[in-house]
Amino acid sequence: MTTKAVQAYLQEHHDRFLAELTDWLKIPSVSTSAEYAGEMRRAAAWVQEKFESIGFPVVEIMPTAGHPLVYAEWTAHPGQPTLLIYGHYDVQPAEPLEAWLSPPFDPAIRDGNIYARGSVDDKGQVMLVLAALEAWSRAGCGMPINVKVILEGEEETGGESIAAWVRSGTDRLRADAVLICDTHMIGEKQPSLITGLRGILYTEITAYGAARDLHSGSYGGVAPNPIHALCLLISRLKGEDGVIRIPELAAELRPAPADEKEFWNSDPLKLEEALCREMGVETLVGEDKYPPLERIGARPTLEVHGIRGGFTDPGIKTVIPAEATAKVSLRLPAGLKPEEVFTWLEKAVRHCSPAGHRIEVTRLNGGEGLVVSPENPFIRAAAEAIETTYGEKPVFMREGGSIPVAALFDQVLQVPVILMGFGLPDDGPHGPNEKLSLAQFKKGMATVADFLGRLRQ
Amino acid sequence: MTTKAVQAYLQEHHDRFLAELTDWLKIPSVSTSAEYAGEMRRAAAWVQEKFESIGFPVVEIMPTAGHPLVYAEWTAHPGQPTLLIYGHYDVQPAEPLEAWLSPPFDPAIRDGNIYARGSVDDKGQVMLVLAALEAWSRAGCGMPINVKVILEGEEETGGESIAAWVRSGTDRLRADAVLICDTHMIGEKQPSLITGLRGILYTEITAYGAARDLHSGSYGGVAPNPIHALCLLISRLKGEDGVIRIPELAAELRPAPADEKEFWNSDPLKLEEALCREMGVETLVGEDKYPPLERIGARPTLEVHGIRGGFTDPGIKTVIPAEATAKVSLRLPAGLKPEEVFTWLEKAVRHCSPAGHRIEVTRLNGGEGLVVSPENPFIRAAAEAIETTYGEKPVFMREGGSIPVAALFDQVLQVPVILMGFGLPDDGPHGPNEKLSLAQFKKGMATVADFLGRLRQ
Repeated sequence: MTTKAVQAYLQEHHDRFLAELTDWLKIPSVSTSAEYAGEMRRAAAWVQEKFESIGFPVVEIMPTAGHPLVYAEWTAHPGQPTLLIYGHYDVQPAEPLEAWLSPPFDPAIRDGNIYARGSVDDKGQVMLVLAALEAWSRAGCGMPINVKVILEGEEETGGESIAAWVRSGTDRLRADAVLICDTHMIGEKQPSLITGLRGILYTEITAYGAARDLHSGSYGGVAPNPIHALCLLISRLKGEDGVIRIPELAAELRPAPADEKEFWNSDPLKLEEALCREMGVETLVGEDKYPPLERIGARPTLEVHGIRGGFTDPGIKTVIPAEATAKVSLRLPAGLKPEEVFTWLEKAVRHCSPAGHRIEVTRLNGGEGLVVSPENPFIRAAAEAIETTYGEKPVFMREGGSIPVAALFDQVLQVPVILMGFGLPDDGPHGPNEKLSLAQFKKGMATVADFLGRLRQ
Repeated sequence: MTTKAVQAYLQEHHDRFLAELTDWLKIPSVSTSAEYAGEMRRAAAWVQEKFESIGFPVVEIMPTAGHPLVYAEWTAHPGQPTLLIYGHYDVQPAEPLEAWLSPPFDPAIRDGNIYARGSVDDKGQVMLVLAALEAWSRAGCGMPINVKVILEGEEETGGESIAAWVRSGTDRLRADAVLICDTHMIGEKQPSLITGLRGILYTEITAYGAARDLHSGSYGGVAPNPIHALCLLISRLKGEDGVIRIPELAAELRPAPADEKEFWNSDPLKLEEALCREMGVETLVGEDKYPPLERIGARPTLEVHGIRGGFTDPGIKTVIPAEATAKVSLRLPAGLKPEEVFTWLEKAVRHCSPAGHRIEVTRLNGGEGLVVSPENPFIRAAAEAIETTYGEKPVFMREGGSIPVAALFDQVLQVPVILMGFGLPDDGPHGPNEKLSLAQFKKGMATVADFLGRLRQ
């Protein structure tokens, strides 16, 4: 049980925690672009100082082939369980900048939210964990359990360095459970805990036609058109019905457990209505024979994230371009290996490519999915901590997002991975005007502090 | 008959003509972008001075709502026929710049060609006409017929101002024939004259999904994806077989005349082989039941010139964008009205659009096609002039390109439109490394000079 002193400390220092988060959000730690390498180092150094000020006896910036890992350790309690906490200090690119109501790296508070790139994904959620750790450290109670924290800077760009670190089998990994605060709840009044994550395979598909750009007047009718080829290919890989036409993938899909299926079908959360409202659309799109919760959490998806080819400036140009390219990902139910799915995709692309074009698929990134059993003491403690703060029992559900490192912790450490996120569905991570609810920020730190206390034996 | 003096003058001053062309090509008169408005004025002023130096008694820059028209007139010979010559001083955008071996606006001579944006389309072809006119003016023979020249600056961006001018019915339009040097020949050794041009309808198709960009992890499986919608739509409008699925268009297509069909089927020019070589591909794409000459010259086409949506920078972003857009044109056999085809296209887009997306089609530009009868004295004179220069009779053929103003001259003036172009198939207009063969430049001016002499009565 957490003490009153810890919760009082969180109340008392709340405004400073928000100010610290604001400072951190001002650092544009965009990991996908080399031009921000210096900002990545600043963001790592910022959190290193924060760990030191909390009182962690071990704090280290670990260089990698990519962006550094930040590690902190406080393991003074033999006999107590050890919790490994994961988060990331890198953020998505902020483009398109013109769509932001306030600048992405100049945090603004409006309507009870803080708006900035990284506010919910993931600096805000790391900050509420840091606040909970500081409260235990400084409120006079001492850290209740052994804590290790690992923060990476490549979550938005493949996570290769942390994957290598987890696979390294270092002693620093040894823990009884992993806590990740990088997901969202159904709503502020309906808390939830994630018991499943989809895996991901992210690729780039490029179509090539003639050796050079052509004039459509002279060659239209006989020339290969790589844009058209991509359109044909993509429409063959997934039809309007939302069904992915990769036979090996279809053959691997298993029906969901009956109890989950029943929960999804009952749609207790009125999710269809909520999703339409969040997206600003009238109907959902996709495999309509599956309920929305199943489509988002358990079915595979194939999405095109970007496409580019030919002349796209304002005005007119009658060109047939020599190439066109698209970014295509697959979200994968737990148990599927991205490497294997990639070979299936390559085969499907060969099979579906229109004649007269050369089409290449490149694998940019991949990570496996995860299913967590709700039957373990760490998940139960997390659920109780949530109920204490929110006054409502959390529902257990699968989320559609992918956190490849979560699956990796699961495989390598073989301990429960607690996915306790405090985002809300309309936070818009990865898009413009990303935000974090200030109420969730506050409840999040109270919940994590409570959770830490509950783990003490 | 042209005089020896005129041809000798062309020989003697050839290098200066090339130097003048080089100067003109250095002016980046890109009509599609507002930032080049000053360069457009410079390019117009350049040709105005050139007309004056040739000795045209009337030279005028005519302001328009868009880029100015340049008009020159030399009509001192009552009783002689009047030829209206058309050309354009604007050029296509030069992007992608990195694909050019030498800068697009710094003309370079390599392998018997001059490389620059506008070299063949159309400044080089206007320059060879100017050289022929100067030779007649300055070689002591006097202008053999009445000549009017109209140059526009909006050919690459819709040609609205010249269309309004042609429709105005001004006296300046009165002529017995129109000459346009803005097309290409089959080859340097196989000259050709164009007896048909396709019309064009150029549109932009934009698909809209959710009200904002979404994270594919949270919404993939239920969210509309405008890129996917565009791919589905485009693949439905034209399949891999190259057949355009617009029922009203299909219903309007008439079989080609038997003699042309026979000529196309015989493929006397080994066009299939030549086209593959020019494009650097192994097979042609499209409606394989029609011979290449028919597909290029007489069949309608639907081509995607550009597509853009979502995240296209290097790296990874798991976004589902709120919108995506494509530029799509139709080339139209003569006789079809672009305005009417646009209504058919709109209907087909509504019919083919996947559910859950809003799709809008905007008409950017349109122009009708043209068929010229080879049975008139102006075409015969053109064919004789070509035979004199090249030592080969030209073949009569249809070209796939569209020159909307040519169709308009035909409709409004009701006089023969002579399409005598000196480009070659591998010149690459609209693409990077656009070029003009120096041999064709020289033969072109000799041919035009000869043609002018043949029209004298």
